[in-house]
Amino acid sequence: MPDFRITLSQNEMIQSWYNVAADLPQPLAPPLNPADGKPLGPEALAPIFPMALIEQEMSAERWIDIPDPVNEALKLWRPTPLHRAVNLEKALGTPARIYYKNESVSPAGSHKPNTSMAQAYYNKEAGITRIATETGAGQWGSALALACHRFGLECTVYMVRVSFEQKPMRKNLMHIWNAEVYSSPTDRTQAGRAFNERYPGTTGSLGMAISEAVEDAATHDDTNYSLGSVLNHVMLHQTVIGQEAKKQFEVAGDFPDILIGCAGGGSNFAGFVFPFVPDKLGGRDIRIIATEPAACPTLTKGPFRYDFGDTGQMTPLLKMHTLGHVFVPPGIHAGGLRYHGMAPLVSHLKDLGLIEATSLHQIECFEAGTLFAQTEGIIPAPETTHAVRAAIIEALKCKESGQEKCIAFNFSGHGHLDLSSYEKFHENKLEDYAYPEEMITEALKEVPEVG
Amino acid sequence: MPDFRITLSQNEMIQSWYNVAADLPQPLAPPLNPADGKPLGPEALAPIFPMALIEQEMSAERWIDIPDPVNEALKLWRPTPLHRAVNLEKALGTPARIYYKNESVSPAGSHKPNTSMAQAYYNKEAGITRIATETGAGQWGSALALACHRFGLECTVYMVRVSFEQKPMRKNLMHIWNAEVYSSPTDRTQAGRAFNERYPGTTGSLGMAISEAVEDAATHDDTNYSLGSVLNHVMLHQTVIGQEAKKQFEVAGDFPDILIGCAGGGSNFAGFVFPFVPDKLGGRDIRIIATEPAACPTLTKGPFRYDFGDTGQMTPLLKMHTLGHVFVPPGIHAGGLRYHGMAPLVSHLKDLGLIEATSLHQIECFEAGTLFAQTEGIIPAPETTHAVRAAIIEALKCKESGQEKCIAFNFSGHGHLDLSSYEKFHENKLEDYAYPEEMITEALKEVPEVG
Repeated sequence: MPDFRITLSQNEMIQSWYNVAADLPQPLAPPLNPADGKPLGPEALAPIFPMALIEQEMSAERWIDIPDPVNEALKLWRPTPLHRAVNLEKALGTPARIYYKNESVSPAGSHKPNTSMAQAYYNKEAGITRIATETGAGQWGSALALACHRFGLECTVYMVRVSFEQKPMRKNLMHIWNAEVYSSPTDRTQAGRAFNERYPGTTGSLGMAISEAVEDAATHDDTNYSLGSVLNHVMLHQTVIGQEAKKQFEVAGDFPDILIGCAGGGSNFAGFVFPFVPDKLGGRDIRIIATEPAACPTLTKGPFRYDFGDTGQMTPLLKMHTLGHVFVPPGIHAGGLRYHGMAPLVSHLKDLGLIEATSLHQIECFEAGTLFAQTEGIIPAPETTHAVRAAIIEALKCKESGQEKCIAFNFSGHGHLDLSSYEKFHENKLEDYAYPEEMITEALKEVPEVG
Repeated sequence: MPDFRITLSQNEMIQSWYNVAADLPQPLAPPLNPADGKPLGPEALAPIFPMALIEQEMSAERWIDIPDPVNEALKLWRPTPLHRAVNLEKALGTPARIYYKNESVSPAGSHKPNTSMAQAYYNKEAGITRIATETGAGQWGSALALACHRFGLECTVYMVRVSFEQKPMRKNLMHIWNAEVYSSPTDRTQAGRAFNERYPGTTGSLGMAISEAVEDAATHDDTNYSLGSVLNHVMLHQTVIGQEAKKQFEVAGDFPDILIGCAGGGSNFAGFVFPFVPDKLGGRDIRIIATEPAACPTLTKGPFRYDFGDTGQMTPLLKMHTLGHVFVPPGIHAGGLRYHGMAPLVSHLKDLGLIEATSLHQIECFEAGTLFAQTEGIIPAPETTHAVRAAIIEALKCKESGQEKCIAFNFSGHGHLDLSSYEKFHENKLEDYAYPEEMITEALKEVPEVG
């Protein structure tokens, strides 16, 4: 019987993060100060980030050492397994070989702790005692709560009210790791009080919660802010995923022809695929596909231009694919893919033609997620079903053409806390949101004319 | 940096189940027919079990081959890792080495699929097309649903009404794997209709659900019944756990002085510890401890005698530690440990002095589970917290005595679908149920005088 799962021992932990910026044929456009349209220096970010992370954000070094305490923390669940999805292959009747890298085995259930551990470590080293952040359904908040507990920091999470009330389980998880979790908008911040006054009874939004967390960090010397995606240093921390996968493909004696990841802010996608970019630049024939919801098609439909990272216009301007910072996507269950923008690095790679993007509908993704759960056993998070669906599409193309391609995708998280959305699918009660063209056209009108 | 996790490759899958009955100094007392008090022959079980499982139930063979299709199915998640809990050790400041075998990585989140896969396989081989079972909170139901889907069987689950309504997530999981799930008592069976008439508006009970599932199986030729614990063949299938652990201790260059498992029906405990029994019989100094709730202290307080396995007196009489088949334990969150009886094999080993037992209170277990989640990352199921707590007690004894013992426990399942009980603990709203002495005294009066 063949080995369907390639594990690495903890002696094989990745020792350096890979910075794709060092290998790109054209440099990344810098973040701009919205006030004057000029590139931002490191000092502009110092009130809310520790200098070590700001340096990583702007680094041109190819390799950056992972500190031992970070790797000790990552050993709670890393290296993660690479699985050959033989049962899915059989069910599809495809000659393709399908692999998935299983990031769902982390304590918080997704790839997010890869960066939260690093961010908590550098903040602790910088003398910070508390981190504030925002969270939607709670994937990022729980990952940061875990990391803050590990490194002895307090953690304050502004959780979008509708999730706080309707999806309490990740809040419970954050409580286990001693985080303070508030239903946003709160009365703790100026921004929160203003939102509550302006929109009485609001269910909150990620944009509002970001404003609260940033204000909390900016107004407290001992407190920093932390972001779970989009920024360069976050992409960097996630590259342990792809680096491990490369070692595992070596063990398997195989190599991917097609790499797939779902993309919301872009971090699980980037972490998985960036370490393969040098192979592609070196002439290897690899297709790299980012998948996103048709309801929020940032890479497939959004222009590549400078925009704010948040609705409240508190962040620097980032050059990225964007649907407009005021765009509020329809209520798909893949909450982690409901972001108007995309990581500047991922956007830049798309612009350079190194990656491609595709958008998928909610129901076909849940169909794919269900087939995956039935064949491979693990329940994919709604976000992850977008990667599963894209892999199935490619595998079925192989069935048609007879090509024995090697398809690999990142299994970014499990859906144990998202079972109610599967139940809606099971009951045929899931909406299939179309591409919201008019909303996007409207939202794009408010993107500033800079850069 | 040392390796905190010992993984095995899939080339090292266990090839035979270990039958502890073959090594015991005194034979197990046989099941009795309640009608005449005489030992039951295999034919008595044939209406609801396939012959292969009945043979395993009564086998005296030490080793029984695992069929290839079963091992192919187990490869969805096996071998499971053995972790050294270094972070927990540090938090406790103990010189003890603490290990845990991680059974939470299965698709259903617990050890249960180790036997559901085997049971589904043998039923399929016997020409059965459907399996009926009962489930409380849904751990067993979801494990059987997964296995039935894998082997192309239909699956009917009678789920205790209160869980069906209040804890829908494992029901959702069963739906993903295409099981039919009914809120028990139903109107589908005579037993169910009788319960509904006699107890209008009842919330149901495991006893009622068992009666419905057994009746469903007994009255349909194409349908069998399946049980997730207690019986000898279930213990047998779980021994892959302990056999893998032994290989992993060899890799680690260590060997346990103390083995711990929580025990409800006894299967995760048995699966973990039985493979070490020959070492103990051979003179090795190993303490083997079963942990149970103070609210349902079967091994610690129940007499060792013949009793029914179910409330409705439909099963054979089994010689076991029992609190009385009419005993209904208080509503602790560890639903899997709320069983009045205990596997005959586990009970017999206790009687022979090969294992010991201890009972623990709910709040100390949730404290232990929280500390474990904070240090090792993974959230233990409420059942599993009983093993965690016992391991901590032993580790703290080592701290006091300075002894560097090796303590190993079975991490039977994760608590991702039990986060609301952790939230109650966090809010100090958890009850701490005492030993229900009077209820047990009353219940024991109804245990039949046989054997």
